[in-house]
Amino acid sequence: MSILTVGTMAFDTIETPYGKAEMVIGGACTYISWAASYWHKDIHLVSIVGEDFPESEVEQLKARGVKMDGLVRVPGKKSFFWSGKYHKDMNGRDTLITDLNVLADFNPVLPDSYKNCEFIMLGNLTPDIQYSVLSQLNQKPKCIILDTMNFWMDVALDRLKEVIAKVDVLTINDEEARQLSGERSLLKAAKKIHAMGPQYLVIKRGEHGAMLFHGEQIFYAPGLPVSEVIDPTGAGDSFAGGMVGYLARMGSLNYSHMKTAIIYGSVMASFCVEDFSLSRLRNLSQDLIHERIRQFEALMTFDVNELEIA
Amino acid sequence: MSILTVGTMAFDTIETPYGKAEMVIGGACTYISWAASYWHKDIHLVSIVGEDFPESEVEQLKARGVKMDGLVRVPGKKSFFWSGKYHKDMNGRDTLITDLNVLADFNPVLPDSYKNCEFIMLGNLTPDIQYSVLSQLNQKPKCIILDTMNFWMDVALDRLKEVIAKVDVLTINDEEARQLSGERSLLKAAKKIHAMGPQYLVIKRGEHGAMLFHGEQIFYAPGLPVSEVIDPTGAGDSFAGGMVGYLARMGSLNYSHMKTAIIYGSVMASFCVEDFSLSRLRNLSQDLIHERIRQFEALMTFDVNELEIA
Repeated sequence: MSILTVGTMAFDTIETPYGKAEMVIGGACTYISWAASYWHKDIHLVSIVGEDFPESEVEQLKARGVKMDGLVRVPGKKSFFWSGKYHKDMNGRDTLITDLNVLADFNPVLPDSYKNCEFIMLGNLTPDIQYSVLSQLNQKPKCIILDTMNFWMDVALDRLKEVIAKVDVLTINDEEARQLSGERSLLKAAKKIHAMGPQYLVIKRGEHGAMLFHGEQIFYAPGLPVSEVIDPTGAGDSFAGGMVGYLARMGSLNYSHMKTAIIYGSVMASFCVEDFSLSRLRNLSQDLIHERIRQFEALMTFDVNELEIA
Repeated sequence: MSILTVGTMAFDTIETPYGKAEMVIGGACTYISWAASYWHKDIHLVSIVGEDFPESEVEQLKARGVKMDGLVRVPGKKSFFWSGKYHKDMNGRDTLITDLNVLADFNPVLPDSYKNCEFIMLGNLTPDIQYSVLSQLNQKPKCIILDTMNFWMDVALDRLKEVIAKVDVLTINDEEARQLSGERSLLKAAKKIHAMGPQYLVIKRGEHGAMLFHGEQIFYAPGLPVSEVIDPTGAGDSFAGGMVGYLARMGSLNYSHMKTAIIYGSVMASFCVEDFSLSRLRNLSQDLIHERIRQFEALMTFDVNELEIA
């Protein structure tokens, strides 16, 4: 089951209470592809970079089974650049610089070999691009996952809603779910968002974990406490990568697979935050990952005991 | 196994986005006793009220198996009064009025019939009172649970640490754990707090649920999304009541019991917030409670699947 992933590849300059990383590799598509590549090798990447983006990074992704026919490299131009500074508690951050560079002209054309992909992961981008990618597919995929953010709700809500109507899984945070639905209660927000299209709503809550809403069913994957959160950048994309990688490996979308996929996503995100940039995601072993899956299991297991009331 | 609970009984005036409740019954000890009484009938209450506190409230608690020999009623004085207004997102609140009234002279003397209680729930109060209560016990109890807050860390840290050294379970929130330990990482904070005395640390996270730390082990009970959070007042005390009620019913403190106790606490808290004051806690049925325990189970259950990496 092939994965298609669309999103940014970028340079980031990041400041956290633990230090500063300058001009390191970032971008949604990069994190998604690295995280997904632990579970599935048939990944088709769509992105755009400038002439400054290191070819060695592209080669490393190729070596992990990521197809690069959909990567456009623009000579004489720079790659997308983002710079941010995290607050002391790591739960908020300020964007210092956003240089779109090549991203300003990103208008992806899918190679023919991409058009039958069955698991589609749309990283956070303009709804126009997300819509265009879906329109180029030859067939209805088994699963479309959409990541977006409040910015697009502010400036391109109508187009965003057209994209949302086409997807199976939407990933946003609490406040974005409230903004999109106009409901304060997440239960009510989920109901309204289901009615917009996605059967599955994933609410990302940072250090508090992630929730899955599907009809009347709810699942909650807690955030795993790690010794130190060094850099939260890319956690959401690593989460998305783990999720789509697991689903493609299983070959179908259903509630049971989605629950485990969210644990896989949470596992990849928990590694991502332990170091700057992609450092932690580059060298994970099966033992390390399985150990962490077991930590999530332990975190969530209790003896159910329905006592008679006194 | 008898429970001893110490804390406030009060009048509250509360404003939330859903409305205003004036001079309704509140107080930590009231919520704790109501929530615990669903699981255990041998509850010994220690508190103080003025002549304005309705006798009918006292009678209702007696009817639920709560012993009132430790309740002092002061003629000619008023009960403790708290007034607060919740922010639009319900995650923060401003205290508008705190009238200590009778609480200013609270210096509890345990009746002899209380001195052999085995499960002790110390509601949030001055560390001096909490210390005094523990000093009056005849024997070392099976379990002492302490609730406290940042205010006491600011104004009475030394005394608070003396109390903390004597307890088995400490319940505080994220920021309080960080303040008490001086560590940003909750893993490191938990380690330092264990070294201060409590084998069990419960981190309360409001709508995000609660975490339990015990040595190297961690458990996470998510917050159950309810249709509408009408009034969060008393949720932490209802949580404490469900927890101590379950532990006393089981008769001993261990990690397995603690995990389920935290689910019982979360269940009682999830009911508490669905209406103002104690309204929701007064009329719960076994079916309703069991249904909610099953909702927590569903929220936390997934198929563990340790795939080989690709």
